[in-house]
Amino acid sequence: MKEKLFIIKIGGNVIDKEDDLKTFLEDFSKITDKKILVHGGGKIASQIGTRLGIEPNYHEGRRITDDETIDLVTMVYGGLINKKIVAQLNAFGSLAVGLTGSDANSIIAHKRPITDGVDFGWVGDIDQVNTRFFNSLLTNGITPVLAPLTGNIEGHILNTNADTIASEVAQALSDSFETHLIYCFEKPGVLKEIEDENSIVDRIDRTQYKQMCESGVINTGMIPKLTNSFKALRNGVSQVVIGHSRNVLSLTKNDFQQCTRINL
Amino acid sequence: MKEKLFIIKIGGNVIDKEDDLKTFLEDFSKITDKKILVHGGGKIASQIGTRLGIEPNYHEGRRITDDETIDLVTMVYGGLINKKIVAQLNAFGSLAVGLTGSDANSIIAHKRPITDGVDFGWVGDIDQVNTRFFNSLLTNGITPVLAPLTGNIEGHILNTNADTIASEVAQALSDSFETHLIYCFEKPGVLKEIEDENSIVDRIDRTQYKQMCESGVINTGMIPKLTNSFKALRNGVSQVVIGHSRNVLSLTKNDFQQCTRINL
Repeated sequence: MKEKLFIIKIGGNVIDKEDDLKTFLEDFSKITDKKILVHGGGKIASQIGTRLGIEPNYHEGRRITDDETIDLVTMVYGGLINKKIVAQLNAFGSLAVGLTGSDANSIIAHKRPITDGVDFGWVGDIDQVNTRFFNSLLTNGITPVLAPLTGNIEGHILNTNADTIASEVAQALSDSFETHLIYCFEKPGVLKEIEDENSIVDRIDRTQYKQMCESGVINTGMIPKLTNSFKALRNGVSQVVIGHSRNVLSLTKNDFQQCTRINL
Repeated sequence: MKEKLFIIKIGGNVIDKEDDLKTFLEDFSKITDKKILVHGGGKIASQIGTRLGIEPNYHEGRRITDDETIDLVTMVYGGLINKKIVAQLNAFGSLAVGLTGSDANSIIAHKRPITDGVDFGWVGDIDQVNTRFFNSLLTNGITPVLAPLTGNIEGHILNTNADTIASEVAQALSDSFETHLIYCFEKPGVLKEIEDENSIVDRIDRTQYKQMCESGVINTGMIPKLTNSFKALRNGVSQVVIGHSRNVLSLTKNDFQQCTRINL
């Protein structure tokens, strides 16, 4: 029987709130199974960017990662946020190592090709996860903490969605571990009514997902989580759960109710 | 017989020059023995600090690492500089991992106590090196790349001199390896006349060092390198060399002339 491995993603909105993040990290440290943490970016990069006079560059609502922006997010995601999380986890007794995909070529990506004339800049789509490296860290009792950054083979850092990183790492490690993917954020799950925390959708499968997309129930922020969830389940991940960061410990239990479980 | 391990420190002035840094990293990648890279900070943190409106705070010429400054250097040293070096090294074929002392508690320090009424802020003096972690990376063919940051056990990042980090890591790993400490910077060694690159002092021992300090020949920037060099040699490090970053490959050879070798 394979050993259990939790791949837990913590969203940007929690990262922006120091106390919520601290509570989450303390609870995360109490998970006794092997674990990997993937963190989002939060608003702090934009705030620091504004102070630095870096003008955000958008195409149809999506930010372009130009030269200045990749340096900004490398600093903020890979340095400030990642290392503060690592330092706090270590203080809570987890032996954590902060990584970008560039470190030990842990997550190799390629720059997204220009599509329909749009160049999104230094954005990376994942090609390969260095499972040997992750295995060796986990075997040595170390918890990897991944920033939403990957690297290409030419030595450039790339901006990569944290939901996708969590899903791809979970898929890649499914040969060695019984992988459980948990998306934690500031809501208790996928909600029918975005303002009503009691309107949690307990389970979502692909048919329901399509219906929800068509009826506009799904919030746009949920789409990457859900598409990544289905892909993960198709590729060997045992379980995918979406829930509130304050429930992270409970979300590792099979019988916990207040969350959304994803099925194929 | 112990295996050779090079601990190489690259100074801030080289880091500020993109082309010099690239050449150095390409040469560093060609070292076939096991190796660790420690990098300094460079001027970029001050430049970004100025753009962010962070006012430097000095006491008798030495910068105080206040709350804003530790965040700044965590971003710039631990994120921007460290991850760019890692990505380039990987492109040159070294499998590199970027670390602060906080990662895996690799270098644990304590906040420097208030001395003579002066609080230097978030500055760390090293207590312990996690040799097990470094051994495991090196055994797996991975090159650690260390930013000039450590961590304390309470989960705070601390600013720490890169020369000291290089020396302490070299000392700690001397039980397992034949350690060679090389300080690389923008000069070919310790110079009698700072503007004359031909005035290299071939060898320095403690007696000569004292004489040079008394006669004012030693540039203040050299003092941490030299005091750390003597400490390293007293504590099991096989060899300490100071030389130019462009000579890094040659500096790993015993018969290379254009450098300063340190003796007890």
